[in-house]
Amino acid sequence: MFNKILIANRGEIALRVIRTCKEMGIKTVAVYSTADAESLHVRFADEAVCIGPPPSTESYLKMANIIAAAEITNADAIHPGYGFLSENARFSRICADNGLKFIGASPEMIEKMGDKATAKATMKEAGVPCVPGSEGVIPDFPTCKKLAVEVGYPVMLKASAGGGGKGMRAVWTEDELEDAWNSARQESKAAFGNDDMYMEKLIEEPRHIEIQIVGDSTGRACHLSERDCSIQRRHQKLTEETPSPFMTDKLREDMGKAAVKAAEYIKYEGAGTVEFLVDKNRNFYFMEMNTRIQVEHPITEEVVDHDLIREQIKVAAGIPISGKNYTPQLHSIECRINAEDPFHDFRPSPGRITTLHAPGGHGVRLDTHVYAGYVIPPNYDSMIAKLIVTAQTREEAISKMRRALDEFVIEGIQTTIPFHRQLMDDPAYIEGNYTTAFMNDWEMEEFDEE
Amino acid sequence: MFNKILIANRGEIALRVIRTCKEMGIKTVAVYSTADAESLHVRFADEAVCIGPPPSTESYLKMANIIAAAEITNADAIHPGYGFLSENARFSRICADNGLKFIGASPEMIEKMGDKATAKATMKEAGVPCVPGSEGVIPDFPTCKKLAVEVGYPVMLKASAGGGGKGMRAVWTEDELEDAWNSARQESKAAFGNDDMYMEKLIEEPRHIEIQIVGDSTGRACHLSERDCSIQRRHQKLTEETPSPFMTDKLREDMGKAAVKAAEYIKYEGAGTVEFLVDKNRNFYFMEMNTRIQVEHPITEEVVDHDLIREQIKVAAGIPISGKNYTPQLHSIECRINAEDPFHDFRPSPGRITTLHAPGGHGVRLDTHVYAGYVIPPNYDSMIAKLIVTAQTREEAISKMRRALDEFVIEGIQTTIPFHRQLMDDPAYIEGNYTTAFMNDWEMEEFDEE
Repeated sequence: MFNKILIANRGEIALRVIRTCKEMGIKTVAVYSTADAESLHVRFADEAVCIGPPPSTESYLKMANIIAAAEITNADAIHPGYGFLSENARFSRICADNGLKFIGASPEMIEKMGDKATAKATMKEAGVPCVPGSEGVIPDFPTCKKLAVEVGYPVMLKASAGGGGKGMRAVWTEDELEDAWNSARQESKAAFGNDDMYMEKLIEEPRHIEIQIVGDSTGRACHLSERDCSIQRRHQKLTEETPSPFMTDKLREDMGKAAVKAAEYIKYEGAGTVEFLVDKNRNFYFMEMNTRIQVEHPITEEVVDHDLIREQIKVAAGIPISGKNYTPQLHSIECRINAEDPFHDFRPSPGRITTLHAPGGHGVRLDTHVYAGYVIPPNYDSMIAKLIVTAQTREEAISKMRRALDEFVIEGIQTTIPFHRQLMDDPAYIEGNYTTAFMNDWEMEEFDEE
Repeated sequence: MFNKILIANRGEIALRVIRTCKEMGIKTVAVYSTADAESLHVRFADEAVCIGPPPSTESYLKMANIIAAAEITNADAIHPGYGFLSENARFSRICADNGLKFIGASPEMIEKMGDKATAKATMKEAGVPCVPGSEGVIPDFPTCKKLAVEVGYPVMLKASAGGGGKGMRAVWTEDELEDAWNSARQESKAAFGNDDMYMEKLIEEPRHIEIQIVGDSTGRACHLSERDCSIQRRHQKLTEETPSPFMTDKLREDMGKAAVKAAEYIKYEGAGTVEFLVDKNRNFYFMEMNTRIQVEHPITEEVVDHDLIREQIKVAAGIPISGKNYTPQLHSIECRINAEDPFHDFRPSPGRITTLHAPGGHGVRLDTHVYAGYVIPPNYDSMIAKLIVTAQTREEAISKMRRALDEFVIEGIQTTIPFHRQLMDDPAYIEGNYTTAFMNDWEMEEFDEE
C-alpha cells in the first residue's frame, strides 16, 4: 500500500480523496493555488504545497510544479481527482517516468479513450453498440441516400467543420433528405468554407445513462450499476440519480454487460465510467468513457455501500477486485450545489459565505470543502457542495431531498439550492419523465423574497 | 396515515422525528420550553407551541400543557421521543383518552415493562432467560446456602433496601458465604435499619448488548440485530456499535429469538429494545425492555437501511411490518457528543457555541439540533450531537470515526470529542475487548493545548 498520496486537485474532490486516505492510514499532500489557501483540502491534508497562482494553467495544470511537490514531500502516488490532469495522457506518463503511481488510467488507455473517434472505433471492435452513421465524410448524395436507409430514419446530417448547430439537419423521412443535404452543405460552406458532411442516427428522446465500472490488473472488470445524468444544462450535469427511473432489469443487464465488455476489452484498470445515450425505445449507444472518478460517484457509493476512492487506491496498489456486479436495492439522488444564481440564468456568484448550516440526519450525505467564512474564489468551477440522499424508494429519496434542501442554509452568495428545490416538485421529474432536453424548457418560479 | 404529529420532546430527537414526518408528508408541531426557543426543532417544525419554562416538570413533563398544545394545533398523534414522557403509562392513557394516537407503547404495556420485578416475572413466563436468583427476600442462612448452589457461584448478595453498594457482597465460593451473609446484613441494618437480603447470580465480565425489535398490531415481531452499549460511564452510554465485537452468529440467533419471543409474548407494537447482560461465557440474561426509540437507534438504521422513526409511525398507523429478521452486513458506530469536559470528570459545559464545523463525506451521519451561535441551556441533558459512521468492517468504521472526529470543530464550549478520539485509539477498544466496567479505569491522556 502507498505511504503518501499527493492529491493533484482542489475543492470537494481533493477533500474527498484526503478523507479516504486518512481512513486507510495513508499520508496526504495537498497542492493549492494562492486563491485556495483557505480551502479545507489544505487544512485537512498532512502537508500542503502551494503550486502557483490562478488561473489553473499556472498551478493545477502545471505538471512540473505538481511533480516537484510530490518529490519534495516524498509522495509515492498521485490522485488526480476529476477534471484538471485526470485524463491527461502526458501527465500520466510523466508520473510513471518519475516513479510516481498515477491513480488513474495508463497513458495508452487515456489516449485510446480520450479521442472520440478512436474510442468509438475501439468500442465497435469490442462489440459495444455505438451510434450508427457514416464512416467519415459522405462523398455524394446517392451514398447519403443509401446510408440513411442503412442507418435508419431519423438521421442527423452534420457538417464536419460544424458547431453551434450550423450545417446540421434532422431528417425524418427520405422525402426530406435531398433538400436537407443541399441546404446543410450550403450553410456549412457559408459558415466554415467547407461543405463536408457526415451522418449519425438521430437519437430520439435521449437519456444520458452511464455505467460505473471497476477493473483490475488481472484484466477483470465488474459494474456497479447505472447513474442517470440526463438533467443537464449546457452539457453540465445538475443532478443525478441511481437507479435511473427509465431503467428496466433487462436494459441494466444489457448495458452492464456492454460496459464490462468495453472495460475488459481495453483491460481497464481502476474506476471508470462508460457513458451511453439511451433512446426512447431503450436502445443504447456508447458515447464516451471517462477514465477517472466522476463528480457523481457518491450516489453509487451510497447504494453499493462501497467507497469508490478506496477501490481506486486498492486497484492502483495491485489489489484485485471482488468482481461482483451490483443490482441496486436503494435509491440515491445527488444535487450539485453551485455558487450560481438560478434566477438569473445561473450566473456565477462567488464571494464570502457568511452563514452555513448543513442538513443532516438519516440518509443525508454532504460533500463540501466550504464553510462559514470561506470566500469562494471566482477562478474555478462553481460547484461548492454535493448533497446526496439515499432511501428505500425513489419517492422517499425525493421527499428526503426536499427536506434536506429546506434545511440547507448558505448565506452571503447565491446558490442553486432553490433550483433543486423546485426541481424536486416538478411533475415531470417526479414521474421520472425526463430526457437530456429537460432543461431547455426550464423556467424558475419566482417567489417573494423574505 | 396521520395528518399532523406533535413531538413531545426537544433537542436532536425532536428534530429527528420532524425530519421523518416531513419526508412522509406529515405536518409537525414542536413544543418547547422558554429555554429552547432558539432550538432547531422549533425552527424546522410547521408549528411550535411554548409549553412553559424550565425545569422539565414545568414544561416537557407537563402533560396538560402538551395535550392542550395538541388540541389547539389539531394534531392527531403524539411522538414522545425518548426520556420525558416516552415511558409514562399515564401519559399514554391520557393521549388515548383525548383521541390522540400515542406513538409508543400502550399504557398496559408500559406498566408491564416499566416495573423491573413485573417485567422480569413476565419474561420468565415467556421463557426469556433472566438473571437467576432468589424470589424475593431470603428467610435464613440455610435457605441462602441452598439457593447459592442452585443459582451457581459466583453470586451477589444484595440488601433489599440497598443502594450505592451498601449491603452488597460478591461471593465466589461456599466458604465465603456465611461471613458475607452476616457482614452484609449488619451493614444493611446499620445503613438502612433493615437487613432483608436477596440474591442474584453475579454476571462476570458483563456486556450490555441489546436487541432492536419491531412489532405490529397483528402480534408479529422481528428483530433488527444487536447494539453493543457496554461503554458506559455511571450508567450513561457513551458510544455504541453494531454488530457487537463480542457477538457470534449463534449468540445473535439465540438473543434475536429471545427478543422476538419477549415482544410477541406481550404483543408488543412499535419499535422497542430488549436489553440483555451477556457474561464472559456468552450466557445472556434479560435486563429490561425499553418501550420507545433509543438514543442509539441510528446505528441500526445505518446497517439495515431502514428509518426506524418511519417504522414507528407506520406501525402506529396500523401498517403491518415485513417481519424479516436482519443479519448485519456493515459496521456502524455512534459517538454521543456531550457538552461536557472530559478532562475534568465530564462536568457539564453549557454556553454559546461560537464555531461549528460538521464532518461529512462517505459513511458519515450527524444528528444534531445545535448550530454556530446556539446557546446550550444548562437545564437539560448534555448531549448535543450524535456522530454516526458506517463502513464495511469494524476496523474501517473505527478509522472513519477517527477522521470524522478530527474534522468536527465545536468552539465556545467543551465537548466529549477528545474522549471519543482517544477511545478510538485505545488498544482494548480496538480489539473489541471491553465490558461495562471499561470506563472504571479510564483516564484521559492530557495533551498540550494549542
